[in-house]
Order: sequence, then C-alpha cells, then structure tokens
Amino acid sequence: MDKKIRVTIWNEYTHEKHMPEVAALYPEGIHGHIKKTLAFDGDLEITLAALDDPNQGLSDELLNNTDVLLWWGHMRHGEVDDGLVGRIRERVYRCGMGFIGLHSAHHSKPFRAIIGCTGDLLWGDEQKEIVWNVNPGHPIAAGIPEHFVFESEEMYGEPFYIAPPDEVVFASWFEHGNIFRSGCCWRRGMGRIFYFQPGHETCPSFYNEHVIRIIDNAIHWAAPCEIGVETPEQCRYFEKLHVNN
Amino acid sequence: MDKKIRVTIWNEYTHEKHMPEVAALYPEGIHGHIKKTLAFDGDLEITLAALDDPNQGLSDELLNNTDVLLWWGHMRHGEVDDGLVGRIRERVYRCGMGFIGLHSAHHSKPFRAIIGCTGDLLWGDEQKEIVWNVNPGHPIAAGIPEHFVFESEEMYGEPFYIAPPDEVVFASWFEHGNIFRSGCCWRRGMGRIFYFQPGHETCPSFYNEHVIRIIDNAIHWAAPCEIGVETPEQCRYFEKLHVNN
Amino acid sequence: MDKKIRVTIWNEYTHEKHMPEVAALYPEGIHGHIKKTLAFDGDLEITLAALDDPNQGLSDELLNNTDVLLWWGHMRHGEVDDGLVGRIRERVYRCGMGFIGLHSAHHSKPFRAIIGCTGDLLWGDEQKEIVWNVNPGHPIAAGIPEHFVFESEEMYGEPFYIAPPDEVVFASWFEHGNIFRSGCCWRRGMGRIFYFQPGHETCPSFYNEHVIRIIDNAIHWAAPCEIGVETPEQCRYFEKLHVNN
Amino acid sequence: MDKKIRVTIWNEYTHEKHMPEVAALYPEGIHGHIKKTLAFDGDLEITLAALDDPNQGLSDELLNNTDVLLWWGHMRHGEVDDGLVGRIRERVYRCGMGFIGLHSAHHSKPFRAIIGCTGDLLWGDEQKEIVWNVNPGHPIAAGIPEHFVFESEEMYGEPFYIAPPDEVVFASWFEHGNIFRSGCCWRRGMGRIFYFQPGHETCPSFYNEHVIRIIDNAIHWAAPCEIGVETPEQCRYFEKLHVNN
Repeated sequence: MDKKIRVTIWNEYTHEKHMPEVAALYPEGIHGHIKKTLAFDGDLEITLAALDDPNQGLSDELLNNTDVLLWWGHMRHGEVDDGLVGRIRERVYRCGMGFIGLHSAHHSKPFRAIIGCTGDLLWGDEQKEIVWNVNPGHPIAAGIPEHFVFESEEMYGEPFYIAPPDEVVFASWFEHGNIFRSGCCWRRGMGRIFYFQPGHETCPSFYNEHVIRIIDNAIHWAAPCEIGVETPEQCRYFEKLHVNN
Repeated sequence: MDKKIRVTIWNEYTHEKHMPEVAALYPEGIHGHIKKTLAFDGDLEITLAALDDPNQGLSDELLNNTDVLLWWGHMRHGEVDDGLVGRIRERVYRCGMGFIGLHSAHHSKPFRAIIGCTGDLLWGDEQKEIVWNVNPGHPIAAGIPEHFVFESEEMYGEPFYIAPPDEVVFASWFEHGNIFRSGCCWRRGMGRIFYFQPGHETCPSFYNEHVIRIIDNAIHWAAPCEIGVETPEQCRYFEKLHVNN
Repeated sequence: MDKKIRVTIWNEYTHEKHMPEVAALYPEGIHGHIKKTLAFDGDLEITLAALDDPNQGLSDELLNNTDVLLWWGHMRHGEVDDGLVGRIRERVYRCGMGFIGLHSAHHSKPFRAIIGCTGDLLWGDEQKEIVWNVNPGHPIAAGIPEHFVFESEEMYGEPFYIAPPDEVVFASWFEHGNIFRSGCCWRRGMGRIFYFQPGHETCPSFYNEHVIRIIDNAIHWAAPCEIGVETPEQCRYFEKLHVNN
Repeated sequence: MDKKIRVTIWNEYTHEKHMPEVAALYPEGIHGHIKKTLAFDGDLEITLAALDDPNQGLSDELLNNTDVLLWWGHMRHGEVDDGLVGRIRERVYRCGMGFIGLHSAHHSKPFRAIIGCTGDLLWGDEQKEIVWNVNPGHPIAAGIPEHFVFESEEMYGEPFYIAPPDEVVFASWFEHGNIFRSGCCWRRGMGRIFYFQPGHETCPSFYNEHVIRIIDNAIHWAAPCEIGVETPEQCRYFEKLHVNN
C-alpha cells in the first residue's frame, strides 16, 4: 500500500468519564481502545477525536485529512453541531470519505443525514447475541466464521428504519426473540458507509477478535479509491460539465 | 378489478398421500387447502396442479393462462422435468408471470433457475419461530403486525445462498439460535418473484391468518401489470428493435 | 378503490408569473395544469399548493391529509423553510406519504433530505431527448411504450449524484451526448419516492400523454398501503417495543 | 499482494480465424491480446483458454485453479457444453470465482445461468459510443474519467433484460438514439460478476487505455477474498450446519 489510510475515531467519550464500570472496561476511552486494537495494521494512520475537544474534535483541517471516520456516540447526539454534521456529510458525498457508524451511532445526526433515515429500532436489555455471517463472500466478512457469540450485548431489534442497505453482511439473533441487521453497507455520493451494531459501553465487545477484524476490514472497504484527497477540487466528483460533442 | 388474476397452485402432493399426519392436517393437499383459504378474494381464479398429473400438472395451455404460479415441493425436486423448468422460467422472464415459492421451494429447480442461486441454507429441527415485519410499508406487509409467532416450524437458517433480494419483507428468529430472511422479493425480466419460508408439511402454518394474508398480498404484488397475457408476442417484452431516429 | 388517494401538488409557481412564454404554456401554473390532466382518474382527490401561499402552501393540517406529495421547484429552493422540510421528511418516513419529485426537484431541499444525496448532475441546453423504458414490467411503466421522444427538453446528465435507486424505470438519451436515469424509485422508512426528470418550465412535456400516464402510475405506486393516515400514531410505524417472549 | 490472482481468459476464438480484418486487429486472438495488455499488473497470473481446446478449454483442473474467469463468446454460444456451464456456475456460487463477461457474453450460457436472465437487448449497427462513469467512487471506476469515447462500437441498447444489477458503474450513449447499462456488477453466492459491453470483434476497443484499466480494476474487484481456493471444501461456503446453542 503506497499511502496510509488516514482514520479518525470520533467518540462522544462521556460514559467512560462518569461510569466506573465503563472506565474500567475502556480506560483509554472506546476510541483509544479501538486504536490500540488496530495497531497491528500498518496501513492505518489513526487520530482520536472527542466531543469535548475544540471544534467538537473535528476541525476542518482534520476532516480534510480523514479518509475514514469512525463514530461512536450515545447520550449526547443532540449536542453535535448541525454545521459539523453538514460538513461530514459533504465530505462523504463529495470527497468519498468512508463513514463507519458503531452501535448507537444509528441515532447520530451524521448517520441519519448521510443515509436518509430516522435510524429508529426496537430496543431492549442486554442478553445473549449470535452474529450470523449472511454474506460470507463480502470483503468485510473476510476471515469471519459462520457465526460468533456475545454472551451479553444490548438488544437492537427490527424493524430497523434505515434506507435499504446496498448489502447486508451480518445479521443477529437475540435470546429473548429479536433479530437485527447488524452489519449494513451503503454508498452515498463518492463515499461508502458501514454500520455495525455491537459495542455497548458496558460490554467488552470491542475486545472480541471478530469485531476487531470486522472493523479493520470495514476501514479498508470504506476507504476511498483515492486516498489522500483533501478538498472536493482534488476529488473525482464530476459535476456541472456540459457535453457538446 | 376488471380481469381476474389467474392463479395456479402447484404442489408436489406426495407427503399428503403417504404420511397420515400430513393427510390429517391437509386432507385436500396443501394446494387444495391454500385454494380454500383464498376463497374470500374475488379477484382470483385458482387452478390446482400436481406433480403426478399429466404434463406434471403444467400443460403449455395452463402455463399460458397463468398470471401467478405458486410452488410447493420438497422430496421430489429432481423429478421435475428440465424442459418444464425452462418453460416456467421463460414465462416469468418474457410474459411477467409472477412466481411464489413456498417453504422448501428454495431448493426447487424453477426457483433456482429463475433467481440464479443454489438456494442452500442451514437446516434444523422444528422449533418456535418469530416472524418479524422488517418492511412494514411494503404492499406484501399490508395488514401484518410487527411480529407473529409459530409455536413450531422447521428451522431454516442463514447463510441463505440466494441472489441479493431486491427487498426483504420478513425475517425470522428461531428458538435455538438461527435467523432467516423468510420473505424475499426479486424482479427477473418482466416478472416478480416472492419467496416465503413458513409451510412445513407437518406444521399448521397455512392455517395462520397472517400467512394467508401474506400469500394473498403476494399474489396481488406479483401479478403482471397486464393480466391475461398468453404468449410473449402479446406481452410488452421489447427486444431486437433497432433505432435510427 | 374504497378511499380516494389524497394528492397535493406543490409548485414553486414563480416562472409562470414572470415569464410570458411559461405563462402561455401553463396559464394555470404547472400544478394547476397537472391537476387538470389527472382529472380522468376518479381515484384521486387533488389539492394545489404554492410557495407563496400561507405556510408555504403546506399547513400541518394539509400535510397530515396528504397521501402523495408532488413537488416542482427550481429557482427558489433556498427559500423553503427548513422546519417544513423536516416535517415533509418525517411524514414520508413515519406515515408513508409518497413523494414525487419532478424535474428540478432533484435539487430541492425535501428531495435531498429524504433520499440522502446532493442531487448534483451535469446540466445543459434544451435538446432532443429519448426516454427509454428500461423496466417494462414495473407498475410505473404500465402502458408506456419501449421509448418516446421529446423534441426539446433541458439536458440533465450523468453522473447524477443520488443514493442508488431501488429501481430505475426510465433512462434517457440526449442528442448532444448525455444520458440520465430519468425515472428512479426509492423506499425510505414507510414511504416510497419517485423522481422523474422531464418537465422544464419552457417545454410542453406535461402535455405529453406518456408523462401524464407515468405521473398517474407513480401516484398509485407511491400511495401508502394505508390511505388516510393523519398522524404517526395512526400509522404502522413500529418502534420502541420490547419483546420478552 | 501475497498470492497472485489466477486469471483465465476464455475466448470463443473463431472470428479471429475466419475474418481477416479481425485477425489483423487481434492476431493473437482477443484473449491473447487482453493477456498482453494486462502484463503490467504483476499481481496476475494469466492462462488462456479457447472453445476448440480439449475440454472446451476448461478442464476441471484449470477451473479449480481459476480465481477470475473472463469470457468472450459470440457466434457459438450454443456449442458450449451444459455440464461445463453448470461447473462454472457452481465454482462462482460455491468457491467465489469471479466472472467477467465481455461484450456478447451477455447472451452466453454461463452468464445467463449465473445471473438468472435472458440477456436480451436491442441491437444495431456500429456507431459512435460515449461511455459515462455513473459511479465514480466505485473501485472499478478508479482512474477512469467522467466519460470517454469510442468512434465506433456495435450498438447494444435498453431494455437490457438482466436481473437488477447490485451496482451500475458505466452507462453508454449511442449516436443513433440508444442507451445501455454498459458496466454492471452482481453478487451470486460467494462470487462477484461484472459485465462490460465494449469489445466487438471488428472494433479496436481492447486497445483503449480506459478499457484495459477497467478490466484490470474488475479483476481485482471480482477476485475472491480467499485467493487460491481449489474446491468447495476449502472454501468458506457454510451450509447444512445445525445450531443448538
């Protein structure tokens, strides 16, 4: 790989500061933990960002130097600035930045605005979850077995009010009777988007080897063909031309 | 409705003759039973057909006068004539005949040839199943609640090796840990295809009010825009024209 | 049909007041003209709305009594109130209101927010256009020939930056070298959306018999299964339930 | 790249032997020419195969050692052995072999059987063609401009009777009034399929730098995640398991 993929992991980073059991599980924050687990992949150059950082963690400069943005948020979705949401969406649409929504990012402003959906779903207690690999030939499923198990994850259930995914890679069974499309792919403008459901703040899901592999696969899948684009002008977003051949 | 939808229900019709418990459940055959449950719908004109009938139940004349074909088969898939399979596929592709595959029709020759798939899946014992309405705005979901339950159905599980459906309307939870895309839509050529998983021969699923409603909805959805077409020549299948404007 | 489909035709209604040639072509406004052409369809109950009306034409009461909303706008997209855009989107997502975007509605706020796209495209002078029926089995293509011609329409060209359509029904050839996906379908939440490209204000496209038929077909296709829903509470939008079976 | 992608280019190889102008254009055969143009890509290991070779060019051993199969055929589609067609389809479905259909392969037996379609289309004389890049963020479009031109190619037109593609990457304008989806992607079972329209035997399209780049991109896109699989047993095609957790 000639150029490294510039990955930014954005985290609301609030539970970790206020809930001792979350702090114990993810002492470096969920974003810091994910960065650490991805250290094995020499193709990535990872930056951390959090809601309480200046510019809510995403200055124009950082956004313009991000190829793939990971997003974890939960209780403070409403605080994310609408202008920032618009800039994230435009970077996906026009520059092909990949966007990976983790867990409760299904209700985040950027996910809803990029995809075009409410992101509503059924919701329930933590329980046993089995993730099924429903698309074993997909690049995001590379190396993932037919199914794997979480002894406890927060239940997310259908109907999941998303725009129809281009591809569903994973779908889940929950012990008390629900099912969920837990790994979904979309394309919007120049960009690719992946949503992945596991990752509740009180569950050790980001320690699971398959989760780490899936996130790594998804980063490679979502990275734009042209890594390193900073502005729409540098990108292959063609518009407003007039052909008179 | 000006013209009636000409529906043919094809059944392998073998279990009913050899297994007393199936005969007790469906004394008129699964096809006869389904016909009876659809009697409330005055828009339909229903013909029955079975594997042991002359022409395996589907003479050219009957096929040419079928707008929607329902298919239930299980243990004798291999006996279905390849020439007949080709004629069914061509009627879907060129004349827009709807095709509704029920239960083990996932492995039938016509389903596999029409869709382009092996139809393989995981398989297991009868157990509790919950069907989730994952696409509540879809015409096939009209009148169907958020979920409904079978106390016992044969388990079909992911990965289900089908071509990616255009739309998934129902998906199911099975008690012992599996999930399944249990109601799927495709378009092929001029025709529309629906696959619906419930309907094991030893289970009373075809007595379930939601199953009946779903089959009726699916017939209306799969019927061609032009009801009454007999041959490709009468149909809107455009080909081989040459434009020199 | 038991209940009538409540259709609202929204028009920016500005060109007609300021450009004599547009006023001559559409003296009742584009919206008034479309209403008149649809008079043959007794299943429809049509209301007109315009940007300069109170509430920009769409009071909550009218929106709550609309099953399908048609939208024509061009030069004043920016004036449409963001709150109204949000209410339109929510009515599509949660109540299943159909949305039909006509011509330059590709750049309108509601279309972009509902679909999740920029709506950008190539653009050029008026020229000959041939519309091809690329999906002749689709309900919106019922009664439409293999192709039909506009002697002059405004050129819209690919790449068209939309979210991948669920189905493309029409695609167009333009004399000077461009092509365009001119009839596209999406599903979002409970609702169905259709975009149709012909209809420039200086062209008589809304007099074309095929255009009228396509708009009529699209209204029937986009109408929710449950006509007459006024609020999300009356609708089949399932959420927040918790299953512990 | 650790392992090379094992590419087999299959060619009917008949026009080149009987038509002097084709022999002059492609003296090594279309397959030999394509191999030569791909020599720059060190990730590929290319084998040639032709209809008149033993086993119609595809012994079980060669097929079991092919990761991506390219197919060019035209006038002798009917001679291709049905058993071979079945083995090709199974290798795509179960082992994830990529399949790239070139030009008149739209009517070849393997393409029709893998995709599930007739492959019919409108057809016409050679004329000017403009290929539009309708999906510029797609990996197969990497490095390809907004549009490029063939001074003369055989006209293929819509309606093109294919199963709905998962993604359309290129679409074409033809001088005399037709349009065509000229670059289409599907997934079937474990495998990925790409169809690309240019490449008539009397046209120098396989000398075009963009065509070469597109074929190279498509090979990388269609290659299975696990290169080197020889048999279904070695592959990640999961089936027939029974979960009782």
